[in-house]
Formats: sequence, C-alpha cells, structure tokens
Amino acid sequence: MDKGTSNGTQSKKALLSDPQLFDTQFDELVTELTERDIADPALTDALNRLREVLLYNAPGGKKNRGLSVIGSLRELVPPTKLTQDAVQRALLVGWCIELLQAFFLVADDIMDASVTRRGQPCWYKKEGVGLDAINDSFLLEAAIYRLLRRHCREQPYYLHLLELFMETSFQTELGQALDLMTAPPGQINLSRFTMERYKAIVKYKTAFYSFYLPVAAAMYMAGINSEVEHNNAKHILLEMGEFFQIQDDYLDCYGDPAVTGKIGTDIQDNKCSWLVVTALGVMTPEQRAELEACYARHDEASVQRVKALYSTLQMEDLYHRHEEDSYRRLQELIARHAQNLPHSVFLNFAKKIYKRNK
Amino acid sequence: MDKGTSNGTQSKKALLSDPQLFDTQFDELVTELTERDIADPALTDALNRLREVLLYNAPGGKKNRGLSVIGSLRELVPPTKLTQDAVQRALLVGWCIELLQAFFLVADDIMDASVTRRGQPCWYKKEGVGLDAINDSFLLEAAIYRLLRRHCREQPYYLHLLELFMETSFQTELGQALDLMTAPPGQINLSRFTMERYKAIVKYKTAFYSFYLPVAAAMYMAGINSEVEHNNAKHILLEMGEFFQIQDDYLDCYGDPAVTGKIGTDIQDNKCSWLVVTALGVMTPEQRAELEACYARHDEASVQRVKALYSTLQMEDLYHRHEEDSYRRLQELIARHAQNLPHSVFLNFAKKIYKRNK
Repeated sequence: MDKGTSNGTQSKKALLSDPQLFDTQFDELVTELTERDIADPALTDALNRLREVLLYNAPGGKKNRGLSVIGSLRELVPPTKLTQDAVQRALLVGWCIELLQAFFLVADDIMDASVTRRGQPCWYKKEGVGLDAINDSFLLEAAIYRLLRRHCREQPYYLHLLELFMETSFQTELGQALDLMTAPPGQINLSRFTMERYKAIVKYKTAFYSFYLPVAAAMYMAGINSEVEHNNAKHILLEMGEFFQIQDDYLDCYGDPAVTGKIGTDIQDNKCSWLVVTALGVMTPEQRAELEACYARHDEASVQRVKALYSTLQMEDLYHRHEEDSYRRLQELIARHAQNLPHSVFLNFAKKIYKRNK
Repeated sequence: MDKGTSNGTQSKKALLSDPQLFDTQFDELVTELTERDIADPALTDALNRLREVLLYNAPGGKKNRGLSVIGSLRELVPPTKLTQDAVQRALLVGWCIELLQAFFLVADDIMDASVTRRGQPCWYKKEGVGLDAINDSFLLEAAIYRLLRRHCREQPYYLHLLELFMETSFQTELGQALDLMTAPPGQINLSRFTMERYKAIVKYKTAFYSFYLPVAAAMYMAGINSEVEHNNAKHILLEMGEFFQIQDDYLDCYGDPAVTGKIGTDIQDNKCSWLVVTALGVMTPEQRAELEACYARHDEASVQRVKALYSTLQMEDLYHRHEEDSYRRLQELIARHAQNLPHSVFLNFAKKIYKRNK
C-alpha cells in the first residue's frame, strides 16, 4: 500500500480530508488483497471473486464506524505526534471495521431473507450468487486479519487488535443468535419481547462492534491498554449504542422516508423493536390482544392498527422523554467515567447521534 | 478446565490413551465455553444454543486431524520433557482443528445442499434450524479463538497459533470459492475440470487444514518456528494431502460401501474428482461426448455408463500406478525435506493413509 513515500504524494494527501483519504485507501487495499497478498496463479479465479465481493459489499455504507477510528485517534494523540503512517494505519483499521460489518450484513441478509441493502440487491440475491454468499462472507472476515497482519504486525498493539476483533465478532454472533431466537420470522410470540432481552440483543448484536470497537481500536493504537480505561469507555459507548438503536427503531416508524431514505418495516417483520417492547409494558390486556392480532402482518390495514395503538399509548411522547433522560444519563456517565480520556472522544460521537432525523 | 492438579486425577489420566483423553476433554471444553467464559446472565439462551451447536457438530468425526496435534508433538518432544499441561494444551489445540472443520462442514453442507453428515441429518436440516445455521457456523469458528486465548495466551507460541489458524481459514475459504465456481450444482461444463484446477482445489480446500495445520501447530508448540522448517513440512504434507484426496475420490467410486460406510455420489454430484479429470486427459472425442451425456445425472443408468467408460479407460489401473508413484515421491520428499524433523512425524501420517480402504 502507498505509504506516501514520495514528497509529492505526501503533500497531495495532506490536502485531503479523512473521509477522502478513507475512500482513496479502499482501492489500494483491494489491489493489495487480490494481487499482492498471495502470489499463486492457481488462485487467480478465487482472488477475482474476492475482489468482486469486496467491491460490492464493503463500500456503500455511511462509513461512520470506519471513520470513527481515525476520528478518535485524533482526539487521543496530539497532531504533532501523529505521523502520516499512523494516520494510514488508523484508516486501515477503520476499513477492517467496515469489513467486519460487511461480513455480518452479507450473512444476516441471507438469514433474514432480506431483498435490498444500501439501495442495491443483497449480495446473495444477485444472479449466480445464492448461498455461495456464505463463503463470500467468510472471505470478508478473513480479509480483516490479512490486512491487520500486513500493516500492523510490527506495531506494539497488534495482538490487542487481533483479540479485540475476535472478541467483538463473538459478541456480535451471540447477539445475532439471541435476535434469531427472539423473533423467528413468521412466528409471533410477544411474551419473548421483554426490555431485558431487547437490551441484551442491542448490546451484543450492535453496540459492541459499532460503538466500542472503533474507539477501543483507537485507544490501543494510542497506547492506552489499561483494563480500567477500556471498561470506562465501554460503559459509556455501550450506553450510546443502546440509545442509537432505540432511535433507529423510533425512526423506522416515525421517521420521514424522504429524509431517512428508507421505508420502515419493523412492524411487518416481527422485529423486537423498542417501540413494541415499551408499548407492551404500558398496555392493557385488551390492547395486547389487539397487538397480537395485527403485529407482524404484511397487510397495510394491520400495520395501521399497530400504529393507531402506538398513538393511543403516546409512544412518540414516551420516546422523546426517553431521549432527554438518556442524553442526561450519558453526560453523567462521561463526567464520571471518562476521567483520563478526552471527553471530546465521546461528545463528538454523541453529537452526531442525538436528535438526528436520519 | 481441569488441568489435573490433584494427584488422583493425574494418575487416573496417565492411564488413558490420547484418544480417550481427547474425548474426555470435550465435555470440559463445552462447559468452559458455555458456562465460564462469559458470565452475563442475559446471554444464557445464546450460550445454550452454542452448547447445542458444539455437541451436534464438533464430535462424531474420525478426529484424525485433532489427534494429529498430540501425535506430532510426541514425535517432536521427548517424553520426559512433555508435561501433563503441555499434553492438555495439545489436545485442546486438536479440538480447535476439529472446531475449524465443524465450522466449514456446517457451512459447506448448506452451500452443497447436503442431507446427511456423519450418519445424522446435516445441522441446517434439523427442524427449526435452517439458515440460522450460518450464524451457528460463525460461533464454532469463534470458539477456536476463545479456547486459544483461555489456554495458550501465556505461551510463547500463542501469536503463531492465532496467525496459523487465521491463515489456514483463509486458504480453505479460497479453496471453497474455487470449488464452488468449478462445479456449480446443476451446471455441467467439463472444460473446467483440468488437473491444474483439481490440484489447486485440493491443496487449498483440504490439504492445508487437514495436513499442514495439525503438524504446524505441534511444531510451534515444540518451539520450532523457522520458516525454512515450516516450508519443508508444508511441502511434504501438502503432497500427502493431495494423495489423500485422490484416494478419497477413488474410494468414492471403487470402495466397498460395507467397508467405507458410505455410498459414493461424486458422479451424480458433478464433482471435479481425480477420476473424471484423469479420464478426460486420456479419452477420445467420442468418449468425451459420451461423458458429457451421462456425467452429473442422477439416474442409475447414467451412473453405470460413466462407470463403464472408466472401466474401458482402465481407471483402476491408472489409480494404482498413481498410488505407487506417489508413495515413492513422498519417501523422496521426506528424505530430502525433513532433515531436521523426525521422519516419524511424516511416516506415521503416511502409514495411516496409504493403502487404506476406508
């Protein structure tokens, strides 16, 4: 990969923003994985497949998770101490997080029988792909460790990153297992939808890899290894991740499709959403019978009955009250737990998240 | 895990053979992964799922790969220098190889639409499992790294083992990608069946994880890290792996089902088998037209026409000649490349493999 060895390249790169540098790095990383990593000509067809899988599935998202690595590192290390090589490595670790997400999304889409993802057909839905997408998801995961090995092997934090990615993968997979058994497609059982279960799914399936992972990676890269500091950061970031998912659930029902870019289907899809879990906690037995009769059905009339029930229960108000509470609690957590870490690491995250409408 | 701290346990364990110790260790390892590794009560259901997945998919095979780790280590380290803890760790690393295989088999069975495996329904075929088996395969993979971390983290070879397992996974996945594109179910295209492609699939999909991985793991555990020594071992073991697969292909057609325990279906399943690839190399255009007409069809008459063609081409003779050549070449390779390694490491393997009939 180009490490900006010539001065010309360095000065050109210095003019680019982190998101621009991040995008630029992707093509180099694909070339590296598919042309330079393994030299055996017998593998040409397999490596061409890997290229296709990478190009279709890794870019195309908002890339917030990937960009958070360099974003956090810039808060943790003073600019004068941040070499251009360190920046490149932080961008690369950011791509590893995007690859981890691509690995999960390719597989989740098969398990959820999803049709589209990021405005294009899901990978397994493409002509000629089908269930071969399972092996393609494995290749996306393997690419993470190839890249870490090639770029970070000589760094003091290499083993920390390996263990962090492996542990985060396990946590996410346990979360996916919980999610699959809580809301099996086609089977409606509202008694499974408890707030305790909801929080466990969100924490394990989403918050670890989306919130703790990028900041923890940056902390290790900055030489911050202490378990106490990591636990403090984890505390704050998992709370943030929970709020993020609750907001996502709220926007699925109440967001403006013109703004969010997607039409929510959580009600139809039998999702264990914050709305249904919270509604279950405040409804009468009669209302519960009504919900049983219309949740997880695909006809528009049933969806409207669920929304009418939410309206009777004033779910929008409940959500906004939760949003205020959550924001206060998070400020407290940051004040209490982020003693040795710059608050900006967390506040920047929080600012992006709260009161977003997409 | 029980490390035999009491003298009573130690002396009882000393009476058990390696295969017995290996079987005994499995239950402890399941308990460890599902009860002691992560304490969060919110994960109980997910960890129960992991237990079920482990119990159904990890044992039940011949366990040759797993047992090869301790087998090789005993050749590399004199008995007086092999502590009971080191034996336990070698057995554990053996289980990691069995878990790696279980991870691949659960996923391959979905991709190949297989029905049975090791005399029971494939995991994804079980009532209520289906495509959730994809996430279950991820959990099997994650279990490898949980176990290595818990048991080998303080060992000097920990990072070597992590990298070895990750690299071997990538190689196997590239091999599976090649295999999937060479013989897509339902599409017959004999021009894809070249000897070069055959060898690449065998090397990447099977030989690395079945032959090089167990011996390489034992070498690292014995403190043998040099790239030269690993390349020498790899050279010999990949050759052995190739022969093993060729023999497997031969037995699929010519083995006695009463002895092998399975009825071969490579012809029906459009497999890129050594038999069809070799036959293609020696047949006339008329015979090729005949093969085109009857390969990869499920009716018994077509299968018999393929077997008649193999018989005309004297495939059994060609195989036995290959077997003799291969055995000689392997002896040479061992003499040439195994200078600093005990030949017994390789000869024990070779003895188990050559002239087997199941």
